[in-house]
Amino acid sequence: MANFQGHALPGSLFIIFGLWWSVKYSMKYHSRRWKKNGHGNRQFNLLEIIEGSAKIACAVIGMLAEQFVPSGPHLQLYGGNPRTWVKLMNWQHTTMYLFFGISGVADVLTYSSSIVPRGLDRLMLSIALFIEGFLFYFHIVGRPMLDQHVHTLLLITTFAGAASLLVEVFLQENIILELFCASLSLLQGTWFYQVGFVLFPPWGGPGWDENDHSNVMFITMCFCWHYVLAICIVAGNYVLVYHFTQKRWASSREAEIKLGFRKQRQEKDSRAALLKESDEE
Amino acid sequence: MANFQGHALPGSLFIIFGLWWSVKYSMKYHSRRWKKNGHGNRQFNLLEIIEGSAKIACAVIGMLAEQFVPSGPHLQLYGGNPRTWVKLMNWQHTTMYLFFGISGVADVLTYSSSIVPRGLDRLMLSIALFIEGFLFYFHIVGRPMLDQHVHTLLLITTFAGAASLLVEVFLQENIILELFCASLSLLQGTWFYQVGFVLFPPWGGPGWDENDHSNVMFITMCFCWHYVLAICIVAGNYVLVYHFTQKRWASSREAEIKLGFRKQRQEKDSRAALLKESDEE
Amino acid sequence: MANFQGHALPGSLFIIFGLWWSVKYSMKYHSRRWKKNGHGNRQFNLLEIIEGSAKIACAVIGMLAEQFVPSGPHLQLYGGNPRTWVKLMNWQHTTMYLFFGISGVADVLTYSSSIVPRGLDRLMLSIALFIEGFLFYFHIVGRPMLDQHVHTLLLITTFAGAASLLVEVFLQENIILELFCASLSLLQGTWFYQVGFVLFPPWGGPGWDENDHSNVMFITMCFCWHYVLAICIVAGNYVLVYHFTQKRWASSREAEIKLGFRKQRQEKDSRAALLKESDEE
Amino acid sequence: MANFQGHALPGSLFIIFGLWWSVKYSMKYHSRRWKKNGHGNRQFNLLEIIEGSAKIACAVIGMLAEQFVPSGPHLQLYGGNPRTWVKLMNWQHTTMYLFFGISGVADVLTYSSSIVPRGLDRLMLSIALFIEGFLFYFHIVGRPMLDQHVHTLLLITTFAGAASLLVEVFLQENIILELFCASLSLLQGTWFYQVGFVLFPPWGGPGWDENDHSNVMFITMCFCWHYVLAICIVAGNYVLVYHFTQKRWASSREAEIKLGFRKQRQEKDSRAALLKESDEE
Repeated sequence: MANFQGHALPGSLFIIFGLWWSVKYSMKYHSRRWKKNGHGNRQFNLLEIIEGSAKIACAVIGMLAEQFVPSGPHLQLYGGNPRTWVKLMNWQHTTMYLFFGISGVADVLTYSSSIVPRGLDRLMLSIALFIEGFLFYFHIVGRPMLDQHVHTLLLITTFAGAASLLVEVFLQENIILELFCASLSLLQGTWFYQVGFVLFPPWGGPGWDENDHSNVMFITMCFCWHYVLAICIVAGNYVLVYHFTQKRWASSREAEIKLGFRKQRQEKDSRAALLKESDEE
Repeated sequence: MANFQGHALPGSLFIIFGLWWSVKYSMKYHSRRWKKNGHGNRQFNLLEIIEGSAKIACAVIGMLAEQFVPSGPHLQLYGGNPRTWVKLMNWQHTTMYLFFGISGVADVLTYSSSIVPRGLDRLMLSIALFIEGFLFYFHIVGRPMLDQHVHTLLLITTFAGAASLLVEVFLQENIILELFCASLSLLQGTWFYQVGFVLFPPWGGPGWDENDHSNVMFITMCFCWHYVLAICIVAGNYVLVYHFTQKRWASSREAEIKLGFRKQRQEKDSRAALLKESDEE
Repeated sequence: MANFQGHALPGSLFIIFGLWWSVKYSMKYHSRRWKKNGHGNRQFNLLEIIEGSAKIACAVIGMLAEQFVPSGPHLQLYGGNPRTWVKLMNWQHTTMYLFFGISGVADVLTYSSSIVPRGLDRLMLSIALFIEGFLFYFHIVGRPMLDQHVHTLLLITTFAGAASLLVEVFLQENIILELFCASLSLLQGTWFYQVGFVLFPPWGGPGWDENDHSNVMFITMCFCWHYVLAICIVAGNYVLVYHFTQKRWASSREAEIKLGFRKQRQEKDSRAALLKESDEE
Repeated sequence: MANFQGHALPGSLFIIFGLWWSVKYSMKYHSRRWKKNGHGNRQFNLLEIIEGSAKIACAVIGMLAEQFVPSGPHLQLYGGNPRTWVKLMNWQHTTMYLFFGISGVADVLTYSSSIVPRGLDRLMLSIALFIEGFLFYFHIVGRPMLDQHVHTLLLITTFAGAASLLVEVFLQENIILELFCASLSLLQGTWFYQVGFVLFPPWGGPGWDENDHSNVMFITMCFCWHYVLAICIVAGNYVLVYHFTQKRWASSREAEIKLGFRKQRQEKDSRAALLKESDEE
């Protein structure tokens, strides 16, 4: 959908997933370090399954929106008079959502069944991002300079994300890769908004001059600032999660220690009683 | 062979190998998980040798077909009047088949001899795919837009396959890489058919308009749909193999357990007999 | 800052850091080999924190210099009449420094706190170099041939450095990667000077003929010579550090051995005394 | 040196090193498998040092040849009237040889001293190949089509070799990588000859038509055939080395077994003698 809303929708989804991932992976990492795996793993598996289901839901909504908006193709691929392809742009976006849906299915299967090999969820998400970048790449040929440029920058985030997820297939549970990936998702989300603002200013107006080289230069730099923002958000979430889990851990530890003391005292008492008995004998 | 049959032949081969690989690697993975390696490995080695021989056979047939079809070069490389290169297209295809043949030889040697290092088969297949992509790359310069585009998409499958196999040289027995590679083989196979349908419609007719940009856009998307199909086929085969091997494993396990019970009972009986004897004494 | 000083400043910084890294990593490597880790690690952590702080300081100075030189934008981004982007070049350089500053912050946090995962410092430095290369890449479009060429060569050092640091995230404490990275930093530093000399000769004069192909050929070769120099400097530092640490190690070992001898003699004496006693008994 | 000899010299060197590497790495691999490391390692280190010295010698000869052939620059870099760069082509080739010389020095140091980290020799050779490719890359701009194409194919061998050696820095003693690298060296060597034959036919004549597209197509395919040849040579050497080392190993084993039998008999005899003695007592 070539309007502001059409960029805000995927942008919001990427931001939400980026935020969620930065929280989830921080939580996983901190609980891994405190070795409460027995309990934590099952909880996290449930979270992953919910995440996968959410992805499927978002993908289905996205597909339906692309197909059945008033200007959409309504599932018609080839037609009209003279016969030609119908609304290929919407079909391409539908295809992108489809791959994210498949990635969601892979998430659900990986974490709910033991026969699916670990890492499949990462591979399918990597493929989904690759397909997104792949379709965008052949999408933007022949557009004006600024339009091409903002989409090229979008491609950097998708291909970097795909590459990073591909490495995660082999290097699982690497916190740095996981947070890097979360930061790229945030970057992509905020950049979708930026693209919307540049090409289709929501307050109307004529959009930016697409052939002004200084606009291109500014946008390039602006992309870097978006990434600074993404780094700060991920770092902030990491620290917040650390403090929260540390508190919970400290209190649960205290409880354990108390329990330990009580046990020790009981043992002491019972040993003392035994000694008394043996003395009496 | 610039006709529909010339694309259907390699297409069919890639589809058959893709199907076979998705089955073989699933079988290997499930039997690895159930640790029946002692028995399984020898069987699988035999399968690999048969696969290698099949590859050699396909390659030889392909080479002969390219050379001795009526329009082929009949092993003549340079000639005519004025002297010039003879049917370079057929020679290039012959070269491609040659490398797949070498890969087949490497398969046979790797699994039949202990002096060939493991991973050589993967490297040679990776080189064969790289050579295929390499020759196609310099093959398509100067063709019309749509022709170039469908071949560029073919290149993506060959180079992705080559890269994935190269990683397999170092990361052996990784089920995700193996199935990924099978899915790429299927994709390449179905895409060969698609290229045939686009450039040389088998029901005659004029072929597609090669300079219509919307055809390029549709074909790009179509490529993604082919991959969705490939993913579904691989996933289906994986699940089918799982159910089949699980049944076999369960029944063999049952047999073992029964055998175990009989043994236990026999031991019990003999021990009881011994006790009786010692009592009687 | 498009003058000689604007290239000499980052050049000097890269040279200083390259020299320092070649010394630091050599020291770390040699002390790792002699297994004095207990003591050394804390010292090295302190060094890393100082290094990080120095990076932050350099970045802040660089940012202030780019903003507040007389020809700078003085923190104004958009203005003038007609309204347009202000001094985007300086803003881009400011952005580059900003990322190196973030990398410095990551250094300090990684080595001063235990909650930050190891490798984050490498990733942030890799991102800083990537951003530097990324901004330069879109910076040089449309410039004369020689100008483009010297900047392209600069890009090789930044992207190679970024890639090498990215590998270091996963392969920590690999001396070869660490020294390679130091040599690339030296190369980048001396190359910044070279760029300054080519485009803005400090002794005035007209600069080089930017459209002479033989200048391009010479510059390409000159780049290789710069790298020979960088290799020699790194190798020299490595050997110097080896001799220095070996001497210190040898003397400390001697002291240990002496101590050992004294102990042995004391034990001998006491044993002799015991023997005497037992004899007298 | 833009003539047939100037391509035959490096070609011969690459072929000799490729042959030698295929033999050396096969020997290393087979002796590693038979675990005679104690003895073998010192021998191999000596071989590596000799190889490094040979590389240095070749590099020095190459540099001197490029500088002091009659048409060479005789160490003059900038001069003439009007002042201009002197014989940059020869200077570039000198630079290439210089890096191979540095790689030779790294070989000698790595295997003769224990303070140089293992893998440095691989990195320096990788850099030497990268520099070769890098200089060739900027060397061929603006030449006729066929000339560019044969050099582009040369670049593939150099960059593939550089990449493969870079992986070897981290994955040492991987026989597949080592033989792959040997095959690329052979390919590069034979390809240098091919380039010489195409551009400067040694029997005089006008050279090939550089703008005929079918020549480009043939050359592309010819490159693949060169690689088939390289694979065959490497495989042949591997098998030859295997048979040779197996024989030596078998005979040495036989000797050991014989020795063992003699020892056993002696022990038997002595035990028998002892028994006799004790009987007699």
